[in-house]
Amino acid sequence: MSTLPDIRVGSGFDVHAYDHAAPLRLAGLDWPGEPGLSGHSDGDAVCHAVVDALLGAAGLGDIGGLVGVDAPDTANAASTGFVRLALERLAAAGFRPVNVSVQIVGNRPKFSPRREEAERVMTELVGAPVSLSATTTDGLGFTGRGEGIAAIATALIAR
Amino acid sequence: MSTLPDIRVGSGFDVHAYDHAAPLRLAGLDWPGEPGLSGHSDGDAVCHAVVDALLGAAGLGDIGGLVGVDAPDTANAASTGFVRLALERLAAAGFRPVNVSVQIVGNRPKFSPRREEAERVMTELVGAPVSLSATTTDGLGFTGRGEGIAAIATALIAR
Amino acid sequence: MSTLPDIRVGSGFDVHAYDHAAPLRLAGLDWPGEPGLSGHSDGDAVCHAVVDALLGAAGLGDIGGLVGVDAPDTANAASTGFVRLALERLAAAGFRPVNVSVQIVGNRPKFSPRREEAERVMTELVGAPVSLSATTTDGLGFTGRGEGIAAIATALIAR
Repeated sequence: MSTLPDIRVGSGFDVHAYDHAAPLRLAGLDWPGEPGLSGHSDGDAVCHAVVDALLGAAGLGDIGGLVGVDAPDTANAASTGFVRLALERLAAAGFRPVNVSVQIVGNRPKFSPRREEAERVMTELVGAPVSLSATTTDGLGFTGRGEGIAAIATALIAR
Repeated sequence: MSTLPDIRVGSGFDVHAYDHAAPLRLAGLDWPGEPGLSGHSDGDAVCHAVVDALLGAAGLGDIGGLVGVDAPDTANAASTGFVRLALERLAAAGFRPVNVSVQIVGNRPKFSPRREEAERVMTELVGAPVSLSATTTDGLGFTGRGEGIAAIATALIAR
Repeated sequence: MSTLPDIRVGSGFDVHAYDHAAPLRLAGLDWPGEPGLSGHSDGDAVCHAVVDALLGAAGLGDIGGLVGVDAPDTANAASTGFVRLALERLAAAGFRPVNVSVQIVGNRPKFSPRREEAERVMTELVGAPVSLSATTTDGLGFTGRGEGIAAIATALIAR
Protein backbone atom coordinates (compact mmCIF):
# COMPACT_ATOMS: atom_id res chain seq x y z
CA MET A 1 0.00 0.00 0.00
CA SER A 2 1.36 3.40 -0.95
CA THR A 3 0.77 6.70 0.78
CA LEU A 4 -1.05 9.23 -1.34
CA PRO A 5 1.26 12.09 -2.30
CA ASP A 6 -0.18 15.58 -1.81
CA ILE A 7 -1.45 16.25 -5.31
CA ARG A 8 -4.33 18.43 -6.50
CA VAL A 9 -6.17 19.07 -9.73
CA GLY A 10 -7.39 22.43 -11.02
CA SER A 11 -9.54 23.67 -13.88
CA GLY A 12 -9.46 27.00 -15.67
CA PHE A 13 -11.58 28.49 -18.42
CA ASP A 14 -11.30 31.78 -20.25
CA VAL A 15 -12.91 33.53 -23.20
CA HIS A 16 -11.91 36.64 -25.12
CA ALA A 17 -13.60 38.28 -28.08
CA TYR A 18 -11.56 39.09 -31.16
CA ASP A 19 -10.36 42.68 -31.45
CA HIS A 20 -9.37 43.15 -35.06
CA ALA A 21 -7.48 46.35 -34.22
CA ALA A 22 -5.21 44.60 -31.70
CA PRO A 23 -2.19 42.33 -32.25
CA LEU A 24 -2.71 38.70 -31.24
CA ARG A 25 -0.87 37.25 -28.24
CA LEU A 26 -1.82 33.63 -27.60
CA ALA A 27 -0.03 30.90 -25.67
CA GLY A 28 2.82 33.28 -25.04
CA LEU A 29 3.48 33.85 -28.76
CA ASP A 30 2.97 36.82 -31.09
CA TRP A 31 0.83 35.99 -34.14
CA PRO A 32 1.48 38.68 -36.79
CA GLY A 33 -1.41 39.18 -39.20
CA GLU A 34 -3.96 37.40 -36.98
CA PRO A 35 -6.87 39.19 -35.28
CA GLY A 36 -6.07 40.02 -31.65
CA LEU A 37 -8.10 39.48 -28.52
CA SER A 38 -9.83 42.14 -26.46
CA GLY A 39 -9.10 42.61 -22.79
CA HIS A 40 -7.49 44.90 -20.28
CA SER A 41 -4.26 42.90 -20.62
CA ASP A 42 -3.03 41.34 -23.88
CA GLY A 43 -6.05 38.98 -23.79
CA ASP A 44 -3.97 35.78 -23.93
CA ALA A 45 -6.76 33.34 -23.07
CA VAL A 46 -4.33 30.40 -22.85
CA CYS A 47 -2.23 32.09 -20.16
CA HIS A 48 -5.37 33.17 -18.29
CA ALA A 49 -6.82 29.64 -18.26
CA VAL A 50 -3.46 28.25 -17.12
CA VAL A 51 -3.34 30.79 -14.26
CA ASP A 52 -6.85 29.87 -13.10
CA ALA A 53 -6.12 26.13 -13.32
CA LEU A 54 -2.92 26.50 -11.26
CA LEU A 55 -4.48 28.79 -8.66
CA GLY A 56 -7.62 26.64 -8.53
CA ALA A 57 -5.60 23.50 -7.89
CA ALA A 58 -3.77 25.19 -5.02
CA GLY A 59 -6.86 26.92 -3.62
CA LEU A 60 -5.24 30.31 -4.05
CA GLY A 61 -8.08 32.24 -5.64
CA ASP A 62 -8.30 33.27 -9.28
CA ILE A 63 -6.72 35.63 -11.77
CA GLY A 64 -9.02 38.48 -10.75
CA GLY A 65 -7.65 38.47 -7.23
CA LEU A 66 -4.09 37.89 -8.40
CA VAL A 67 -3.98 40.79 -10.79
CA GLY A 68 -6.21 43.08 -8.75
CA VAL A 69 -4.05 42.83 -5.66
CA ASP A 70 -0.50 42.84 -6.99
CA ALA A 71 -0.49 44.35 -10.44
CA PRO A 72 -2.86 47.31 -10.71
CA ASP A 73 -1.12 48.67 -13.79
CA THR A 74 -1.88 45.75 -16.09
CA ALA A 75 -3.21 47.63 -19.14
CA ASN A 76 -1.86 45.75 -22.18
CA ALA A 77 0.33 43.68 -19.84
CA ALA A 78 1.86 40.47 -21.15
CA SER A 79 -0.14 37.65 -19.58
CA THR A 80 2.99 35.54 -19.26
CA GLY A 81 3.70 37.78 -16.28
CA PHE A 82 0.43 36.61 -14.67
CA VAL A 83 1.58 33.01 -15.07
CA ARG A 84 4.87 33.85 -13.34
CA LEU A 85 2.97 35.58 -10.54
CA ALA A 86 0.69 32.54 -10.09
CA LEU A 87 3.75 30.26 -9.94
CA GLU A 88 5.26 32.46 -7.22
CA ARG A 89 2.08 32.09 -5.20
CA LEU A 90 2.13 28.32 -5.67
CA ALA A 91 5.76 28.11 -4.61
CA ALA A 92 5.05 30.24 -1.53
CA ALA A 93 2.30 27.75 -0.61
CA GLY A 94 4.69 24.83 -1.13
CA PHE A 95 3.22 23.62 -4.44
CA ARG A 96 4.82 22.97 -7.82
CA PRO A 97 3.12 22.28 -11.17
CA VAL A 98 3.22 18.68 -12.42
CA ASN A 99 1.65 19.31 -15.84
CA VAL A 100 -0.98 21.45 -17.56
CA SER A 101 -3.16 20.50 -20.53
CA VAL A 102 -4.94 23.23 -22.49
CA GLN A 103 -7.50 23.05 -25.28
CA ILE A 104 -7.92 26.13 -27.48
CA VAL A 105 -11.38 26.45 -29.03
CA GLY A 106 -11.82 28.76 -32.01
CA ASN A 107 -11.49 29.28 -35.75
CA ARG A 108 -8.39 31.47 -35.68
CA PRO A 109 -5.42 31.38 -35.53
CA LYS A 110 -4.68 28.07 -37.29
CA PHE A 111 -2.80 26.60 -34.37
CA SER A 112 -1.22 23.36 -35.53
CA PRO A 113 1.74 24.87 -37.46
CA ARG A 114 2.96 26.55 -34.25
CA ARG A 115 1.71 24.05 -31.65
CA GLU A 116 5.14 22.68 -30.79
CA GLU A 117 6.69 26.15 -30.60
CA ALA A 118 3.92 27.32 -28.27
CA GLU A 119 4.30 24.19 -26.12
CA ARG A 120 8.03 24.89 -25.74
CA VAL A 121 7.40 28.50 -24.68
CA MET A 122 4.63 27.60 -22.23
CA THR A 123 6.55 24.60 -20.83
CA GLU A 124 9.59 26.77 -20.19
CA LEU A 125 7.38 29.43 -18.60
CA VAL A 126 5.58 27.00 -16.28
CA GLY A 127 8.59 24.79 -15.54
CA ALA A 128 6.56 21.64 -16.17
CA PRO A 129 5.03 20.05 -19.28
CA VAL A 130 2.30 22.21 -20.86
CA SER A 131 0.45 20.57 -23.74
CA LEU A 132 -1.71 22.53 -26.14
CA SER A 133 -4.35 21.33 -28.54
CA ALA A 134 -6.84 23.17 -30.70
CA THR A 135 -10.28 22.46 -32.01
CA THR A 136 -13.17 24.24 -33.68
CA THR A 137 -16.87 23.98 -32.88
CA ASP A 138 -18.06 22.97 -36.35
CA GLY A 139 -19.51 26.43 -37.04
CA LEU A 140 -21.59 26.43 -33.84
CA GLY A 141 -21.78 28.98 -31.04
CA PHE A 142 -19.69 32.12 -30.62
CA THR A 143 -16.45 30.32 -31.45
CA GLY A 144 -18.03 28.83 -34.56
CA ARG A 145 -19.24 32.27 -35.67
CA GLY A 146 -15.70 33.58 -35.31
CA GLU A 147 -16.51 35.97 -32.48
CA GLY A 148 -13.82 34.85 -30.05
CA ILE A 149 -11.61 32.19 -28.53
CA ALA A 150 -12.08 29.96 -25.50
CA ALA A 151 -9.36 28.09 -23.60
CA ILE A 152 -9.95 25.17 -21.25
CA ALA A 153 -7.08 24.16 -18.95
CA THR A 154 -6.58 21.35 -16.46
CA ALA A 155 -3.57 21.42 -14.14
CA LEU A 156 -2.02 18.87 -11.82
CA ILE A 157 0.15 20.17 -8.97
CA ALA A 158 2.03 18.55 -6.09
CA ARG A 159 3.28 19.68 -2.70
CA MET B 1 10.06 3.60 -7.78
CA SER B 2 6.75 4.26 -6.11
CA THR B 3 3.52 2.37 -6.47
CA LEU B 4 0.73 4.37 -8.01
CA PRO B 5 -1.97 5.12 -5.45
CA ASP B 6 -5.54 4.45 -6.58
CA ILE B 7 -6.52 7.93 -7.69
CA ARG B 8 -9.02 9.05 -10.34
CA VAL B 9 -10.01 12.28 -12.02
CA GLY B 10 -13.53 13.40 -12.90
CA SER B 11 -15.11 16.23 -14.85
CA GLY B 12 -18.52 17.82 -14.42
CA PHE B 13 -20.35 20.54 -16.33
CA ASP B 14 -23.71 22.16 -15.69
CA VAL B 15 -25.75 25.04 -17.06
CA HIS B 16 -28.86 26.74 -15.73
CA ALA B 17 -30.82 29.64 -17.18
CA TYR B 18 -31.62 32.62 -15.00
CA ASP B 19 -35.09 32.65 -13.50
CA HIS B 20 -35.67 36.22 -12.34
CA ALA B 21 -38.65 35.13 -10.21
CA ALA B 22 -36.55 32.67 -8.16
CA PRO B 23 -34.07 33.29 -5.35
CA LEU B 24 -30.44 32.49 -6.21
CA ARG B 25 -28.66 29.54 -4.61
CA LEU B 26 -25.10 29.14 -5.88
CA ALA B 27 -22.12 27.34 -4.40
CA GLY B 28 -24.22 26.50 -1.35
CA LEU B 29 -24.94 30.16 -0.56
CA ASP B 30 -28.06 32.32 -0.73
CA TRP B 31 -27.60 35.46 -2.83
CA PRO B 32 -30.36 37.93 -1.87
CA GLY B 33 -31.27 40.38 -4.64
CA GLU B 34 -29.60 38.33 -7.39
CA PRO B 35 -31.54 36.60 -10.19
CA GLY B 36 -32.09 32.91 -9.44
CA LEU B 37 -31.54 29.86 -11.59
CA SER B 38 -34.23 27.71 -13.15
CA GLY B 39 -34.43 24.01 -12.47
CA HIS B 40 -36.43 21.33 -10.74
CA SER B 41 -34.14 21.69 -7.70
CA ASP B 42 -32.67 25.01 -6.53
CA GLY B 43 -30.60 25.13 -9.74
CA ASP B 44 -27.24 25.41 -7.94
CA ALA B 45 -25.00 24.76 -10.96
CA VAL B 46 -21.85 24.64 -8.82
CA CYS B 47 -23.19 21.82 -6.66
CA HIS B 48 -24.44 19.97 -9.74
CA ALA B 49 -21.05 20.18 -11.49
CA VAL B 50 -19.31 19.03 -8.30
CA VAL B 51 -21.66 16.03 -8.05
CA ASP B 52 -20.99 15.01 -11.65
CA ALA B 53 -17.22 15.44 -11.24
CA LEU B 54 -17.19 13.29 -8.09
CA LEU B 55 -19.47 10.60 -9.53
CA GLY B 56 -17.59 10.68 -12.84
CA ALA B 57 -14.25 10.17 -11.12
CA ALA B 58 -15.60 7.15 -9.24
CA GLY B 59 -17.53 5.72 -12.19
CA LEU B 60 -20.78 5.92 -10.26
CA GLY B 61 -23.04 7.47 -12.90
CA ASP B 62 -24.29 11.03 -12.89
CA ILE B 63 -26.62 13.37 -11.05
CA GLY B 64 -29.62 12.23 -13.12
CA GLY B 65 -29.28 8.68 -11.84
CA LEU B 66 -28.45 9.80 -8.33
CA VAL B 67 -31.47 11.99 -7.86
CA GLY B 68 -33.83 9.88 -9.94
CA VAL B 69 -33.20 6.74 -7.92
CA ASP B 70 -32.96 7.99 -4.35
CA ALA B 71 -34.66 11.35 -4.09
CA PRO B 72 -37.86 11.49 -6.14
CA ASP B 73 -39.22 14.47 -4.22
CA THR B 74 -36.53 16.95 -5.18
CA ALA B 75 -38.67 19.92 -6.26
CA ASN B 76 -36.86 23.04 -4.99
CA ALA B 77 -34.47 20.76 -3.09
CA ALA B 78 -31.20 22.22 -1.82
CA SER B 79 -28.50 20.87 -4.11
CA THR B 80 -26.11 20.60 -1.19
CA GLY B 81 -28.10 17.47 -0.38
CA PHE B 82 -27.13 16.01 -3.77
CA VAL B 83 -23.47 16.60 -2.93
CA ARG B 84 -23.92 14.74 0.37
CA LEU B 85 -25.64 11.89 -1.45
CA ALA B 86 -22.80 11.68 -3.99
CA LEU B 87 -20.25 11.59 -1.18
CA GLU B 88 -22.15 8.71 0.47
CA ARG B 89 -21.95 6.79 -2.81
CA LEU B 90 -18.23 7.49 -3.07
CA ALA B 91 -17.64 6.36 0.50
CA ALA B 92 -19.63 3.17 -0.11
CA ALA B 93 -17.35 2.46 -3.09
CA GLY B 94 -14.26 3.10 -0.95
CA PHE B 95 -13.39 6.51 -2.42
CA ARG B 96 -12.79 9.88 -0.78
CA PRO B 97 -12.45 13.29 -2.45
CA VAL B 98 -8.93 14.76 -2.62
CA ASN B 99 -9.90 18.17 -4.02
CA VAL B 100 -12.35 19.82 -6.41
CA SER B 101 -11.76 22.89 -8.57
CA VAL B 102 -14.76 24.74 -10.05
CA GLN B 103 -14.95 27.59 -12.53
CA ILE B 104 -18.18 29.62 -12.62
CA VAL B 105 -18.90 31.24 -15.99
CA GLY B 106 -21.41 34.09 -16.14
CA ASN B 107 -22.11 37.79 -15.64
CA ARG B 108 -24.02 37.51 -12.36
CA PRO B 109 -23.65 37.28 -9.43
CA LYS B 110 -20.41 39.20 -8.91
CA PHE B 111 -18.60 36.33 -7.26
CA SER B 112 -15.30 37.65 -5.94
CA PRO B 113 -16.64 39.40 -2.80
CA ARG B 114 -18.04 36.07 -1.54
CA ARG B 115 -15.50 33.67 -3.07
CA GLU B 116 -13.78 32.81 0.19
CA GLU B 117 -17.09 32.37 2.02
CA ALA B 118 -18.35 30.03 -0.72
CA GLU B 119 -15.09 28.07 -0.66
CA ARG B 120 -15.43 27.57 3.10
CA VAL B 121 -19.01 26.31 2.76
CA MET B 122 -18.22 23.98 -0.14
CA THR B 123 -14.99 22.71 1.44
CA GLU B 124 -16.83 21.87 4.67
CA LEU B 125 -19.60 20.18 2.65
CA VAL B 126 -17.21 18.06 0.56
CA GLY B 127 -14.71 17.37 3.35
CA ALA B 128 -11.79 18.23 1.07
CA PRO B 129 -10.53 21.46 -0.50
CA VAL B 130 -13.00 22.99 -2.98
CA SER B 131 -11.69 26.01 -4.88
CA LEU B 132 -13.98 28.34 -6.78
CA SER B 133 -13.15 30.87 -9.44
CA ALA B 134 -15.33 32.98 -11.70
CA THR B 135 -15.01 34.42 -15.15
CA THR B 136 -17.13 36.04 -17.83
CA THR B 137 -17.14 35.36 -21.55
CA ASP B 138 -16.44 38.91 -22.72
CA GLY B 139 -20.04 39.41 -23.84
CA LEU B 140 -20.05 36.28 -26.02
CA GLY B 141 -22.44 33.35 -26.06
CA PHE B 142 -25.35 32.68 -23.72
CA THR B 143 -23.33 33.54 -20.63
CA GLY B 144 -22.16 36.79 -22.22
CA ARG B 145 -25.74 37.70 -23.11
CA GLY B 146 -26.73 37.20 -19.47
CA GLU B 147 -29.02 34.23 -20.16
CA GLY B 148 -27.54 31.83 -17.63
CA ILE B 149 -24.61 30.41 -15.72
CA ALA B 150 -22.25 27.53 -16.48
CA ALA B 151 -20.05 25.68 -13.99
CA ILE B 152 -17.06 23.51 -14.91
CA ALA B 153 -15.68 21.20 -12.21
CA THR B 154 -12.69 18.87 -12.02
CA ALA B 155 -12.36 16.48 -9.09
CA LEU B 156 -9.54 14.28 -7.84
CA ILE B 157 -10.48 11.31 -5.65
CA ALA B 158 -8.55 8.50 -4.01
CA ARG B 159 -9.33 5.02 -2.74
CA MET C 1 6.92 11.00 2.73
CA SER C 2 6.07 9.31 -0.53
CA THR C 3 7.65 9.81 -3.92
CA LEU C 4 5.32 11.28 -6.50
CA PRO C 5 4.49 8.74 -9.18
CA ASP C 6 4.76 9.99 -12.76
CA ILE C 7 1.16 10.92 -13.40
CA ARG C 8 -0.33 13.55 -15.71
CA VAL C 9 -3.73 15.06 -16.36
CA GLY C 10 -5.20 15.96 -19.75
CA SER C 11 -8.26 17.78 -21.02
CA GLY C 12 -10.12 17.35 -24.28
CA PHE C 13 -13.09 19.14 -25.80
CA ASP C 14 -14.97 18.49 -29.02
CA VAL C 15 -18.10 19.73 -30.77
CA HIS C 16 -19.99 18.37 -33.76
CA ALA C 17 -23.12 19.72 -35.41
CA TYR C 18 -26.03 17.37 -36.01
CA ASP C 19 -26.29 15.95 -39.51
CA HIS C 20 -29.82 14.61 -39.81
CA ALA C 21 -28.89 12.63 -42.93
CA ALA C 22 -26.15 10.67 -41.12
CA PRO C 23 -26.37 7.78 -38.67
CA LEU C 24 -25.32 8.58 -35.11
CA ARG C 25 -22.14 7.10 -33.63
CA LEU C 26 -21.49 8.33 -30.09
CA ALA C 27 -19.34 6.87 -27.33
CA GLY C 28 -18.53 3.93 -29.57
CA LEU C 29 -22.19 2.93 -29.99
CA ASP C 30 -24.63 3.06 -32.89
CA TRP C 31 -27.83 4.97 -32.12
CA PRO C 32 -30.47 3.93 -34.69
CA GLY C 33 -33.13 6.57 -35.30
CA GLU C 34 -31.12 9.40 -33.72
CA PRO C 35 -29.71 12.36 -35.72
CA GLY C 36 -26.07 11.81 -36.61
CA LEU C 37 -23.09 14.13 -36.28
CA SER C 38 -21.27 15.87 -39.09
CA GLY C 39 -17.57 15.42 -39.63
CA HIS C 40 -14.98 13.91 -41.90
CA SER C 41 -14.99 10.78 -39.70
CA ASP C 42 -18.10 9.40 -37.97
CA GLY C 43 -18.20 12.52 -35.80
CA ASP C 44 -18.08 10.64 -32.48
CA ALA C 45 -17.41 13.64 -30.23
CA VAL C 46 -16.90 11.42 -27.17
CA CYS C 47 -14.08 9.46 -28.82
CA HIS C 48 -12.52 12.68 -30.13
CA ALA C 49 -12.53 14.33 -26.69
CA VAL C 50 -11.05 11.17 -25.15
CA VAL C 51 -8.27 11.16 -27.75
CA ASP C 52 -7.40 14.80 -27.08
CA ALA C 53 -7.46 14.28 -23.30
CA LEU C 54 -5.14 11.25 -23.54
CA LEU C 55 -2.74 12.90 -26.00
CA GLY C 56 -2.84 16.15 -24.03
CA ALA C 57 -1.94 14.38 -20.80
CA ALA C 58 1.04 12.72 -22.47
CA GLY C 59 2.13 15.81 -24.42
CA LEU C 60 1.74 13.95 -27.70
CA GLY C 61 -0.16 16.55 -29.72
CA ASP C 62 -3.81 16.36 -30.67
CA ILE C 63 -6.22 14.44 -32.85
CA GLY C 64 -5.47 16.65 -35.86
CA GLY C 65 -1.85 15.58 -35.89
CA LEU C 66 -2.69 11.98 -35.05
CA VAL C 67 -5.11 11.47 -37.90
CA GLY C 68 -3.35 13.73 -40.35
CA VAL C 69 -0.06 11.85 -40.06
CA ASP C 70 -1.08 8.22 -39.83
CA ALA C 71 -4.55 7.80 -41.25
CA PRO C 72 -5.14 9.96 -44.31
CA ASP C 73 -8.07 7.87 -45.48
CA THR C 74 -10.35 8.60 -42.56
CA ALA C 75 -13.54 9.56 -44.40
CA ASN C 76 -16.41 8.07 -42.36
CA ALA C 77 -13.83 6.24 -40.24
CA ALA C 78 -14.92 4.80 -36.91
CA SER C 79 -13.46 7.09 -34.27
CA THR C 80 -12.81 4.15 -31.98
CA GLY C 81 -9.84 3.57 -34.27
CA PHE C 82 -8.49 7.02 -33.34
CA VAL C 83 -8.70 6.06 -29.67
CA ARG C 84 -6.72 2.89 -30.37
CA LEU C 85 -4.13 4.92 -32.28
CA ALA C 86 -3.80 7.40 -29.40
CA LEU C 87 -3.33 4.52 -26.95
CA GLU C 88 -0.55 3.09 -29.14
CA ARG C 89 1.19 6.47 -29.02
CA LEU C 90 0.82 6.61 -25.23
CA ALA C 91 2.20 3.09 -24.85
CA ALA C 92 5.15 3.94 -27.10
CA ALA C 93 5.90 6.90 -24.79
CA GLY C 94 5.65 4.66 -21.73
CA PHE C 95 2.27 5.91 -20.52
CA ARG C 96 -0.95 4.05 -19.67
CA PRO C 97 -4.41 5.52 -18.99
CA VAL C 98 -5.57 5.51 -15.35
CA ASN C 99 -9.12 6.74 -15.98
CA VAL C 100 -11.11 9.08 -18.21
CA SER C 101 -14.24 11.04 -17.29
CA VAL C 102 -16.41 12.47 -20.07
CA GLN C 103 -19.41 14.79 -19.92
CA ILE C 104 -21.72 14.84 -22.96
CA VAL C 105 -23.59 18.13 -23.44
CA GLY C 106 -26.65 18.16 -25.68
CA ASN C 107 -30.35 17.48 -26.06
CA ARG C 108 -30.06 14.27 -28.09
CA PRO C 109 -29.65 11.36 -27.82
CA LYS C 110 -31.23 10.66 -24.44
CA PHE C 111 -28.13 9.12 -22.95
CA SER C 112 -29.08 7.63 -19.57
CA PRO C 113 -30.77 4.45 -20.86
CA ARG C 114 -27.51 3.41 -22.56
CA ARG C 115 -24.97 5.02 -20.22
CA GLU C 116 -23.78 1.78 -18.68
CA GLU C 117 -23.54 0.05 -22.05
CA ALA C 118 -21.49 2.93 -23.44
CA GLU C 119 -19.24 2.93 -20.38
CA ARG C 120 -18.54 -0.79 -20.87
CA VAL C 121 -17.64 -0.30 -24.54
CA MET C 122 -15.42 2.72 -23.87
CA THR C 123 -13.78 1.13 -20.81
CA GLU C 124 -12.93 -1.99 -22.82
CA LEU C 125 -11.62 0.20 -25.66
CA VAL C 126 -9.40 2.34 -23.40
CA GLY C 127 -8.33 -0.47 -21.07
CA ALA C 128 -9.06 1.69 -18.00
CA PRO C 129 -12.25 3.04 -16.41
CA VAL C 130 -14.13 5.48 -18.68
CA SER C 131 -17.11 7.16 -17.05
CA LEU C 132 -19.75 8.99 -19.07
CA SER C 133 -22.35 11.48 -17.93
CA ALA C 134 -24.76 13.64 -19.86
CA THR C 135 -26.36 17.01 -19.30
CA THR C 136 -28.30 19.63 -21.19
CA THR C 137 -27.84 23.40 -21.16
CA ASP C 138 -31.37 24.33 -20.12
CA GLY C 139 -32.28 25.50 -23.63
CA LEU C 140 -29.28 27.86 -23.85
CA GLY C 141 -26.57 28.15 -26.49
CA PHE C 142 -26.04 25.91 -29.51
CA THR C 143 -26.54 22.72 -27.52
CA GLY C 144 -29.75 24.11 -26.02
CA ARG C 145 -31.03 25.03 -29.49
CA GLY C 146 -30.40 21.45 -30.63
CA GLU C 147 -27.70 22.36 -33.13
CA GLY C 148 -25.03 19.96 -31.95
CA ILE C 149 -23.25 18.06 -29.20
CA ALA C 150 -20.22 18.93 -27.08
CA ALA C 151 -18.05 16.48 -25.13
CA ILE C 152 -15.68 17.46 -22.30
CA ALA C 153 -13.11 14.87 -21.21
CA THR C 154 -10.52 14.75 -18.46
CA ALA C 155 -7.94 11.95 -18.43
CA LEU C 156 -5.43 10.77 -15.86
CA ILE C 157 -2.44 8.77 -17.12
CA ALA C 158 0.63 7.25 -15.48
CA ARG C 159 4.10 6.24 -16.59
